[in-house]
Amino acid sequence: MIGATPAPGAGRPVIAITTGEPAGIGPEISLRAAWAMRREVNCVLLGDAAFLALTASLLDPDIKVAALSTMALRNGGLPQFGPDRLTVIDVPLVAHVRPGILDRANGRAVLATLDLAVEGIEAGWFEAMVTAPLQKSTINDAGVAFSGHTEYLAEKTATPLVVMMLAGELDQSAVAGGTALRVALATTHLPLRAVADAITFDALGRVLDIVDADLKRKFGVQVPRILVAGLNPHAGENGYLGREEIDTIAPALAAARARGIDARGPYPADTLFQPKYLRDADCVLAMYHDQGLPVLKYATFGRGVNITLGLPLIRTSVDHGTALDLAAQGLGLADCASMEQAIRCALEMVAAQHSPS
Amino acid sequence: MIGATPAPGAGRPVIAITTGEPAGIGPEISLRAAWAMRREVNCVLLGDAAFLALTASLLDPDIKVAALSTMALRNGGLPQFGPDRLTVIDVPLVAHVRPGILDRANGRAVLATLDLAVEGIEAGWFEAMVTAPLQKSTINDAGVAFSGHTEYLAEKTATPLVVMMLAGELDQSAVAGGTALRVALATTHLPLRAVADAITFDALGRVLDIVDADLKRKFGVQVPRILVAGLNPHAGENGYLGREEIDTIAPALAAARARGIDARGPYPADTLFQPKYLRDADCVLAMYHDQGLPVLKYATFGRGVNITLGLPLIRTSVDHGTALDLAAQGLGLADCASMEQAIRCALEMVAAQHSPS
Repeated sequence: MIGATPAPGAGRPVIAITTGEPAGIGPEISLRAAWAMRREVNCVLLGDAAFLALTASLLDPDIKVAALSTMALRNGGLPQFGPDRLTVIDVPLVAHVRPGILDRANGRAVLATLDLAVEGIEAGWFEAMVTAPLQKSTINDAGVAFSGHTEYLAEKTATPLVVMMLAGELDQSAVAGGTALRVALATTHLPLRAVADAITFDALGRVLDIVDADLKRKFGVQVPRILVAGLNPHAGENGYLGREEIDTIAPALAAARARGIDARGPYPADTLFQPKYLRDADCVLAMYHDQGLPVLKYATFGRGVNITLGLPLIRTSVDHGTALDLAAQGLGLADCASMEQAIRCALEMVAAQHSPS
Repeated sequence: MIGATPAPGAGRPVIAITTGEPAGIGPEISLRAAWAMRREVNCVLLGDAAFLALTASLLDPDIKVAALSTMALRNGGLPQFGPDRLTVIDVPLVAHVRPGILDRANGRAVLATLDLAVEGIEAGWFEAMVTAPLQKSTINDAGVAFSGHTEYLAEKTATPLVVMMLAGELDQSAVAGGTALRVALATTHLPLRAVADAITFDALGRVLDIVDADLKRKFGVQVPRILVAGLNPHAGENGYLGREEIDTIAPALAAARARGIDARGPYPADTLFQPKYLRDADCVLAMYHDQGLPVLKYATFGRGVNITLGLPLIRTSVDHGTALDLAAQGLGLADCASMEQAIRCALEMVAAQHSPS
């Protein structure tokens, strides 16, 4: 990427934040994180401008917001408001927002922020997107079949396969020699009884290709070391507790190694997440959701970041939901640590893409 | 248990330690932990007396061992050697021990230590048993079908169902208001594809009964609060990711609550293991092995304890294996923290059984 066009934004990288379900904590954490980090990054918030300006004024009178219509953006590009104001691109809601109470009338506006973020990355206005949590049911109730950010963005960008990865900083004490834990998932939102059949030689090979390629391209890891968990307890214990490791996983790892990927395992999931193994790894590949995420979320104490690998763009997200109950109690209660980490992770990925590898 | 016969052992509780696979680290960690804790607890080591005495002398010349034959034990009961010597009950091996190298000739002797521990608890010589790791394959190769300590002890004591629970101390910082994490498993050593069908209304009910009863009886928890994980990611997300939560787990929990058990859930496994939830719980019930144990083992940093619930006796164990590779490198390398924790846990359980509830 040497010689690529310099990033817009007067030196600060420009990152779009989709502010998510308006009745949840998304608008609050987007505003607070973007404001706290305004000297490092030009966060452009996508959402209802009037609602965001109101929320900002209630959160902290110091927060200054400058709003722009999508038409102005499309006609004139992104203006430079400087680091003392947050840029908001107006994607108007239909219904009045009542914190904690979902309203299907606003479902399509939430979706429109995702469309705008993708459009803006393709147009070169933004270098990455960070997504606040949305409520799947609201969008479905609005008449749009929607199974999640990840799947939607894959379809939108015509990406055949994406891989969900969660990452977070660990306690320094936990992992000597390494402070980040990354866990990618071979399968994501599948019923448990469908998992074993979804792990095939071909599918696992494609997942490993994506994890390897994106750790190189988007994280700047030269030769990613990937620790792969088994599917069964004790990684099948030599076939006594299931044969998928012998029949499918080990052959897929051998084939990946033959393609130059440093894929190791399969290892028992219950011993894999130990400092002595993690310190020599860049990523863990778990076979399914609840094998990898409980330990990741425990270890990163609510400061985890969700990253979609395989997309032609950089997308990170918080690792929590809309917290409607918290939003209903009022502003100032939500923790924006995960949002700050998601922005920071996107920044690091932008930098890794710009740097020569 | 008020008015029960006082524990033998001149005030110190008496706990049998089966020293496990002789070619592994079991003998070393048993000796070191028992010696370190000799003022608090009278650990009686079950294993080959000559081999254990030799190992002790190589580990630390200060360790004094007093050996007894099983015949002497059966005829005269357990003598009081005092806290300056470790008692060993001789269960002779057949083959010379080469550290790190398994020998099926010794398989039956390892099994005989388990039989003796159960016999000794029934006879009142011991109040609990702690097991060092053994190698299942050695016992199977010796011609005895053996699928694990837990299953063997269940059969030996005619117990229809046992439940595996792992427990460990957490960092003080991790869980304000609580320092122990306990994770019980609804299913244990099953291939992943067999898990969903093994979770039935009846089976889950029986597991909850055992967890509740043993937390009361063996841990002295008056009304155990049990957090139950779902089977599917996000606990099925209202049926979108699997129906087992709706069809099986929630009804089983409702029935358990109707029996007076404080069973809560089902909750998503990836958010359940957060301090804010754990601090109000006495135990987490995970649906399967790799849903619960990666986070438990990560959180307790190799100081976890394996406890078998449902048995008519107290049995705890280390949470690691025989570490043959480490044993082959010589003495003094193994970490006996998990063994010390297993002994400590057994002590607490003995005390809880003796105390009025």
